[in-house]
Amino acid sequence: MINFTVGPVQSDDCVKAIGAQDTPYFRTDEFSQVMLENEALVKEFAHAPEGSRTVFVTGSGTAAMEASVINTLDSNDKALVVNGGSFGARFVQLLELHGIPHTVIELERGCPLTSEDLAPYENQGYTAFLVNIHETSTGIRYNPELISEFCKRNDLYLIVDAISSFLADPLDMEEWGAGIVLTGSQKALACPPGISVVVLAPAALERVERIPMKCMYLDFGLLLENGLRGQTPFTPAVSVLLQINARLRELKERGGAIAEQERCAALAEDFRARIAHLPFQMNLSSPSNAVTSLLAPTCDAREIFETLKDEYGIWVCPNGGDHAHDSFRVGHIGNLTVDDNIALVQAFDALVQRGIIH
Amino acid sequence: MINFTVGPVQSDDCVKAIGAQDTPYFRTDEFSQVMLENEALVKEFAHAPEGSRTVFVTGSGTAAMEASVINTLDSNDKALVVNGGSFGARFVQLLELHGIPHTVIELERGCPLTSEDLAPYENQGYTAFLVNIHETSTGIRYNPELISEFCKRNDLYLIVDAISSFLADPLDMEEWGAGIVLTGSQKALACPPGISVVVLAPAALERVERIPMKCMYLDFGLLLENGLRGQTPFTPAVSVLLQINARLRELKERGGAIAEQERCAALAEDFRARIAHLPFQMNLSSPSNAVTSLLAPTCDAREIFETLKDEYGIWVCPNGGDHAHDSFRVGHIGNLTVDDNIALVQAFDALVQRGIIH
Repeated sequence: MINFTVGPVQSDDCVKAIGAQDTPYFRTDEFSQVMLENEALVKEFAHAPEGSRTVFVTGSGTAAMEASVINTLDSNDKALVVNGGSFGARFVQLLELHGIPHTVIELERGCPLTSEDLAPYENQGYTAFLVNIHETSTGIRYNPELISEFCKRNDLYLIVDAISSFLADPLDMEEWGAGIVLTGSQKALACPPGISVVVLAPAALERVERIPMKCMYLDFGLLLENGLRGQTPFTPAVSVLLQINARLRELKERGGAIAEQERCAALAEDFRARIAHLPFQMNLSSPSNAVTSLLAPTCDAREIFETLKDEYGIWVCPNGGDHAHDSFRVGHIGNLTVDDNIALVQAFDALVQRGIIH
Repeated sequence: MINFTVGPVQSDDCVKAIGAQDTPYFRTDEFSQVMLENEALVKEFAHAPEGSRTVFVTGSGTAAMEASVINTLDSNDKALVVNGGSFGARFVQLLELHGIPHTVIELERGCPLTSEDLAPYENQGYTAFLVNIHETSTGIRYNPELISEFCKRNDLYLIVDAISSFLADPLDMEEWGAGIVLTGSQKALACPPGISVVVLAPAALERVERIPMKCMYLDFGLLLENGLRGQTPFTPAVSVLLQINARLRELKERGGAIAEQERCAALAEDFRARIAHLPFQMNLSSPSNAVTSLLAPTCDAREIFETLKDEYGIWVCPNGGDHAHDSFRVGHIGNLTVDDNIALVQAFDALVQRGIIH
């Protein structure tokens, strides 16, 4: 199978070689050294400011989103949250569940965030801003400079969900003034799912210190304390953490985060150029390098997904809910090449011949 | 390395072969079928009563313990909790954190639970009982029949943490009348860590239905709802779930849970017989088959652990905190054999020669 979804994605050989081995015991100095290196490399690739920390939660991206909400926001906050798709909606649900006062900036699906969207909220006493910098469900990447300037002007604590954007798009936590940046093992880190990664700037660390524990398993305080010695409070997904280490070292050798962003960007650009002749609509107003969202209003997108899976050995990324039949996505993260793009476009062409794409 | 810890443990080839592969995309019928089979086999091996369900949480055993507390207990409960070691203490902390009224049955470290311990709590209006049926930190397995009869007599809802006991010791959820039994992927299931498994009997399901969501990531309601179609609400540790499937099928072929319990019991018995000549004290008043806890009062247990790791290619299981230097543990779960026991005892003998064990 060739995997064009946005996670889990294809891994490099160094990652799969670790998966083939027994999981080692981890309450050892050897594993602690791996974890300390993971923390240092993630901070480097996120351009985290001096004094930042990184924690590794055994859980999905949603675990990291919820942990960020409950560990660094409380009922004294007044949060702004961008809702432009299913992951924005998840942030809204989390704020509601945990009683964090908030206002939702509702965007039309697939639309970028503009300065007009933000204008009504200048100088209104907000304290925090939550955004999925790449709304994975639509492929839209919001403008980080616009958000950053707004947050700096209004002294807002900024939580950036960069789950599928980290390593695929430019990211500069220090320049953005972000308090938190979070990602997952199964996106451009290209490891199996099971670990989410949260980088906390000093502004976030100060909040963690102040806000009481709400959930032991998702508690940043315990993760930070144990992380000082390269350990975790509870048994983590050890194999995935070792795989993350191999991958981070490989990325470092290959030129770091910027080289990987450029590789994803080139793959995305190549793919978008190759499908100009197909009857798909691409929304390229503000795309992430991680994925291309394709509207297929005259086809059945679910049929395209199933046929590619069952007859061509290719996974594209289906949409759920209301958009299961009119659109799908093609990812550009993980171990993919231009040859894979060529194979996918050949399969699309075959579906045109068969009348499934029309 | 030979791994005698109590998790992560050594895996069979069928499990490692899956780890060597790319993680597949999982929002598919193929993965749903795997998950439905996982649910059915876990229920079978736990002897779950009719109408039970199983959920798979991407997280550690503590995630499953906390999820069990917040999804099935509330402030109207009056819980009894057994604290005979560090995992009992964790249940107590979770009940405190989440405001569940409770009374702690404090046991001396390494002592079994007796009917005298329970007597004061008969007919006192308790509603729930929480126990780590095998307190992994001390190697003691509490008497499930004693607990079960007490709970039935007093109409208590019973939560059984069987993290390291599932598949290693006899377990009969229906006979015990347990509401919940939980375990983890890295214990006798012998897969990499990352997944905890929770079996819910109808009594637990009724409580989940009634008690409002407290944490989205750990919410049983969402897990149960998505599980009906073999899916999870958030991206799970897909590879570990596939590995669990391979392992459950293998266990089924080899005679199911009872055959695996007998294998662990035989390994434990073999090991305990082989070390009679060594100056360790074994507490065999009520041992689990999963692990043997060894008191080494005249040695430095940490030095034994480090020397075996660095010079003999063997991990035994160190203790933490106050017991780091006077005791350690030897596990009997996962892909271990009598030959491995022989190798370990030879290494112990070498440490006797060197004066490290005396």
